[in-house]
Amino acid sequence: MTLDAVILKGCGRMLTRHANPANGRSTREAVIHSALKLFNMGGYDGTSVRAIAADAGVNIALVSYYFGGKQGLLEYLMASFLEGYLNNLEKAEREAQDAGKPPDECLVSVADALIGYQQQSLYLSRFVHREMTLDNQLVRELMASYLMKEKFLLTRLFEKAAPELKFDPMSADFALLQYRDMIMMPFLQPQFLRKVFYLQPGEPSFRMNYLRYIRRWVERLAGRPVGNLK
Amino acid sequence: MTLDAVILKGCGRMLTRHANPANGRSTREAVIHSALKLFNMGGYDGTSVRAIAADAGVNIALVSYYFGGKQGLLEYLMASFLEGYLNNLEKAEREAQDAGKPPDECLVSVADALIGYQQQSLYLSRFVHREMTLDNQLVRELMASYLMKEKFLLTRLFEKAAPELKFDPMSADFALLQYRDMIMMPFLQPQFLRKVFYLQPGEPSFRMNYLRYIRRWVERLAGRPVGNLK
Repeated sequence: MTLDAVILKGCGRMLTRHANPANGRSTREAVIHSALKLFNMGGYDGTSVRAIAADAGVNIALVSYYFGGKQGLLEYLMASFLEGYLNNLEKAEREAQDAGKPPDECLVSVADALIGYQQQSLYLSRFVHREMTLDNQLVRELMASYLMKEKFLLTRLFEKAAPELKFDPMSADFALLQYRDMIMMPFLQPQFLRKVFYLQPGEPSFRMNYLRYIRRWVERLAGRPVGNLK
Repeated sequence: MTLDAVILKGCGRMLTRHANPANGRSTREAVIHSALKLFNMGGYDGTSVRAIAADAGVNIALVSYYFGGKQGLLEYLMASFLEGYLNNLEKAEREAQDAGKPPDECLVSVADALIGYQQQSLYLSRFVHREMTLDNQLVRELMASYLMKEKFLLTRLFEKAAPELKFDPMSADFALLQYRDMIMMPFLQPQFLRKVFYLQPGEPSFRMNYLRYIRRWVERLAGRPVGNLK
């Protein structure tokens, strides 16, 4: 599934599509694609609506029409990504439990699903993760909603998977943060991984090898082999 | 030591100071302080030289005079931080070895030093870590120099501390990346830690508690208690 498909799917809103003769994508998708590309090169504030429209090959007025301007586009991208992220998290947990997997195996399954989600939208993931490190009104609102929910879901997962951490709330929080960062970091700093470590965060082989490391991490944390030694 | 003191010290260049009657800081320090504050609120590209000068209470021409404009200011901040970071890393390793600490204890000492370094310059740390996730010429140059050297230094540390990882280069890289992220993440996303986890990355108590977690992480990785069970 492509980046755009994920965004369109993740959001779950009704979308008006206009065929774009240039490449067969809808105008809306072309705007999203160009915006993300330019945001990752020059930052959100360094990118003008005019540059986005030019790169997408659409009329500048359509950016306002679809997203209500640049701030609307920003809010749409952030909320779409985070909503899809949490949906994938919940779905992976539910499926792992339905399949009868033990709690520590669930941690591995959830990590796998979230890495897959980010691999499907490399530009968007990097952009959202980076924007979330800024200190502004939108970020505060997204934290109070999406990231609070994420914390709740991950805490629940962890309390089952590593029960010995329960007695030390500080360690439990640090372990949870480390798990979260482990999932997120390759997608926040993909060029660092590429240029300095020669790793390719977007590749299926990366996912497979990284999952093996995450599994070992969970094993070390829980102090025992994960699941059924699968 | 304050943020400004760290930047001025870390860089090691001769600095011309001009007394600023408003708060006793030099003009140069006032510009750096205001720039970092505004960059963390609106991003680098969203912040004008005019706004920096206004916030610092200095004439706009002085920003060009001291830094050769906004790009020069950016390069100065990035290089200063990374240079100080690597200096602290090397110094902590050398001191730990001179004190006869075993290799896994050295990993803990280096983490402690780097957390301390970032605590002394919270604004600057966050700004540099975030900028390093962009995809531009300056970032590529800084990666090829500073971050390549960081990788070399950390690899050397890790090969001594967790020799069993040597036989699995992939795991060794992931462990190294995780160690690096563990040290960096609280300072890239301090408001997330504050607002969602009620942790205060700038506080001495955070450093103490977090170090305890890092020590446990090293123990799990090395498969034995760190150092002399101190």
